[in-house]
Parts: sequence; C-alpha cells; structure tokens
Amino acid sequence: LPQSRGKPFFHRIQVRWADCDPARIAYTGHIPALALQAIEAWWEHHTGLDWFRINFDRDVGTPFVHMKLDFRSPVTPRHALECEVVLKRLGSRSVTHIVNGRQNGVLCFEGEFVAVFVDAPTMKPRAPPADILAAIRDLALEA
Amino acid sequence: LPQSRGKPFFHRIQVRWADCDPARIAYTGHIPALALQAIEAWWEHHTGLDWFRINFDRDVGTPFVHMKLDFRSPVTPRHALECEVVLKRLGSRSVTHIVNGRQNGVLCFEGEFVAVFVDAPTMKPRAPPADILAAIRDLALEA
Amino acid sequence: LPQSRGKPFFHRIQVRWADCDPARIAYTGHIPALALQAIEAWWEHHTGLDWFRINFDRDVGTPFVHMKLDFRSPVTPRHALECEVVLKRLGSRSVTHIVNGRQNGVLCFEGEFVAVFVDAPTMKPRAPPADILAAIRDLALEA
Amino acid sequence: LPQSRGKPFFHRIQVRWADCDPARIAYTGHIPALALQAIEAWWEHHTGLDWFRINFDRDVGTPFVHMKLDFRSPVTPRHALECEVVLKRLGSRSVTHIVNGRQNGVLCFEGEFVAVFVDAPTMKPRAPPADILAAIRDLALEA
Repeated sequence: LPQSRGKPFFHRIQVRWADCDPARIAYTGHIPALALQAIEAWWEHHTGLDWFRINFDRDVGTPFVHMKLDFRSPVTPRHALECEVVLKRLGSRSVTHIVNGRQNGVLCFEGEFVAVFVDAPTMKPRAPPADILAAIRDLALEA
Repeated sequence: LPQSRGKPFFHRIQVRWADCDPARIAYTGHIPALALQAIEAWWEHHTGLDWFRINFDRDVGTPFVHMKLDFRSPVTPRHALECEVVLKRLGSRSVTHIVNGRQNGVLCFEGEFVAVFVDAPTMKPRAPPADILAAIRDLALEA
Repeated sequence: LPQSRGKPFFHRIQVRWADCDPARIAYTGHIPALALQAIEAWWEHHTGLDWFRINFDRDVGTPFVHMKLDFRSPVTPRHALECEVVLKRLGSRSVTHIVNGRQNGVLCFEGEFVAVFVDAPTMKPRAPPADILAAIRDLALEA
Repeated sequence: LPQSRGKPFFHRIQVRWADCDPARIAYTGHIPALALQAIEAWWEHHTGLDWFRINFDRDVGTPFVHMKLDFRSPVTPRHALECEVVLKRLGSRSVTHIVNGRQNGVLCFEGEFVAVFVDAPTMKPRAPPADILAAIRDLALEA
C-alpha cells in the first residue's frame, strides 16, 4: 500500500466579518463554499490545476453529486479555519473527499463530498485523464 | 393524526446570472444557501417570524447541526427553482426539514437539514416557545 | 419627447439573515449585488431577457465599467427593500442606470451604474441589437 | 511630512471558480466585496484589529458611506489579484481608502471607499480612539 494513502492536505482560510451573520458566527449557508474552497486547493496542490484550469485547459469537470456536513462548533473570525482534506475514495468516475474544519484545535465541522468526472463541454461522465489519475491515485484512504 | 401532517410548503427562487459559475449552472457551493432560504421562508410562513425576528424579537435561534444534499440535475436561470419544504421531524429541541428543488418539473436536488433550538443570547439548547411549537407541531411528517 | 422618459421600474427584494453581518445590517459588500439584481430585473421586464438569456441566446453582454453608491441608511430584514431603477442615459454602446433603494419609505442607498454593450463571445464593444434598442430607447431620462 | 504618507499596503486574493460567472470572469457584483476584504486586511495590518475585533473588542464600527469603482479589465482565476490599498484621507470622523486591483501587472479595477467611525453599539458618529488614530495618521496621502 502506498505510504501517501489517506495523506491529509491542510488549507487555511481566514474567516471574515463578511462571512458572519447577526449571530456573530459564520453563516451556515456559507460553510459548504468554504469546504469546497479547501477541496479546490487540494486539487491545485496535487495536480497543479484549479477548477478554472481543469475545466478550460483540460476540458474536465468535477461536479458534485453529494455533500453532507455536521456542524460541531461555531466558526468565527477569532482564529484561522484550518481545513484538513483527505481523499477518502477514488472510483473509476467519482471522487470522495472528507473535509474537517478546525479553529484553535476545536473541530468546527466535518464534511463529506462526492464529485464525478465529466467531459466539461458536454457534462457527460468520463474517467479522469491518466496524468490526473496518476497524481492522486495513491492518496485514497480506501482501496 | 392531523391532516396537515407532512404538508409541503413551496418557495420559488429566481436563479440569476450571479448564482452561476463558468459551467453555466448554479455554483454547487451556493445551493445550500438557496435551500436555507426556502427553510427560512417556511418559518416565516408558518410562524410569522423570519430568522432575524425569531432571533432578536424572541431570543430564539435555530442553528443547523447537520445538512446533506444530493444533486440530481443542474440548476440554471432558465426556469424558476421551486423548493418544496417539508417538516420531517420535530424533536423536543430539534427540527428536521426536507427541501427538494425542482426546475420545470425536473428534480434538481434533495436535501435534509437538522437544526436545534437555542436561547439566542447564550446559544444554549432550549425547547421552542409554546406559540412557535403550536404553529408547527401538526406539520411534522414523522411522529 | 416620449412620455416613458425616465419612467422608473420597481423591484422588491426580501433582505435575509444571510445578507446581514454581525452589526445586524446588510453587509455593505453585498449591497452592490442587490442593486445589480434590480438592474437585471429591469432588463428582464423591458426586453424579456435576463442576463443569462441575453448572453447565451443573443450573444450580447452588458459588462459594467463603473459603479458608485452612497449609503444613506442601513438595510435590514425588517422591511422589504424597494429598488427604483431608472435608465439615466443610453449611449450608442453604453447604458447608465440609477438604482435607489428604500425600506419603509427611507432612502437606504443611491447608486449609479454604467455598462457597455459587447459581443458576448469576444467581449468586443458593439451597438445593441435593434429590437433591444427599440425596447428601451424611450425610457432614457437624458437625451 | 511623514515618510509613510501614502504608503501602499498590498493584499493578495486568489480568485476562484466560485467567484466567476458564466462569462468566465469574476462577477462584477462580487468585486466590491474583494476590495473591502483588502481594506479589512489593511486595518488588520496597521492596527492589529480586523472588523470583528474592532467592533466587538473595541466597540468601534467603520461603516461605509460611499464607494465608487471603475472596472478596467476582467478579473479571472488565471492570476492572483494584487490589491494595492492606500489611505487617501483621514478626516476627524471619516477615512477614505483607494483600492487598485491588478492581475499579472494589468490594472483590473480602481476603487475609492469612504467609511465613518461610529460607536458600534449605537452606530453614532465618533472620533477614532487615540491608539487607532496614532497607528494610521501618518499614512494618509492627503493632509
């Protein structure tokens, strides 16, 4: 088994006044977009491709088909939001990420996100290109 | 059993250019906020209280502790987004909503959202006030 | 002079908890997007084309080149935000809108927005198509 | 005259897929919030206080009363957005910032933003506290 199996990637987000609601915490409706930002940073780190480039330079899209989140503790601007991203599973045409967000060591949310590989111009399912597959396949936690 | 059990509430959202990403569909990271908007409209319809008023006029908060969404079909500005909101379960201190979004009759997403009742100033769990409970208790799909 | 000259269009927006910041008012950084939503509704009302359709069905884009806003009074969820949109000026390749936002009769913001007509695929300046021009030319406040 | 007069502060923003619209550029309605993020970073750099802390730890608010922006060139995810923030003017109860955004050396937007100092709990105008004034007064471009 590869040593990189389940290797976490960390992405730091500075939560801002703009992200918070009148309860003085990050608005729940914004938190999925913060987790997605961490997943995009994971892609960029491992493949060199952000979502703009993977779509338009490589004609590959990765639309989400599922997300679930458990909110454990409020997110605020007091501390950086440290997002831990793990590739949970890599299917032939799908990819599952775990994103756990922490502030000052406290778990704020746990999320799981499933995306599929598509041909970007037609949105039809496809397998990932060989170089992208090679860049990420040894990272998957589950076989 | 009350006849209103599982009664759906419908909330229409006009998806806009601003909601869409370069794939020409509503950005996935924005869709949870659209579903939450439908839940807030459900509260306002049944209790007369939007989230601003329930928090500041009644000192009651309803923070989310869980959400899950399945994305079935892209959301676009071509048709109105019809959100069907159902109160799935009403616990002593929690509330579970289902939100299904459709465009032109096509199911776009299915979501489930769990919130808890808290005392807004302290964020401590509490039971809902009697009048709010009375306004919604006969709507729950599950006993 | 046409009687429709300077005729205002009104667009109502329900400001939500999600739009507000910890100061319990709509976040300033979100207000330009609310004004733009009112301008898009103006386009849809007068031409039948929202920005998605004008771009993809007609290959015409209307990117903004300038905006200015004065914030007169806070925007909150307490009252609907009534946006008054006036076509201030229609140039050969540009269009200037005024958007004034009011809540409960109180002026909250005044804005002015200049956009240009472009060929959407190339982003090159162009004159508006004849039917679009015909639909809006008698509305301009200034000659 | 202080040597720090007009000294620029630079704040880098990574524009993302989520920020872009179907024209494949950052949505105009989002750009003011990006400029405000750069101004908040300026405050944090010079005073150690982000907007959350200045409001809740110091009871000082800085609501905006005016903004204007000229959009010179599209903003995309292809390059980092380098925001140059300059304190243009410091009045007895107001503060004016210039924010110029560039990508790959190309000027994308120029903005000017006026905020006022208020007592955060009451939103009444006030002069800035002495330590905050001391931290920024030598930075103003105009006397």
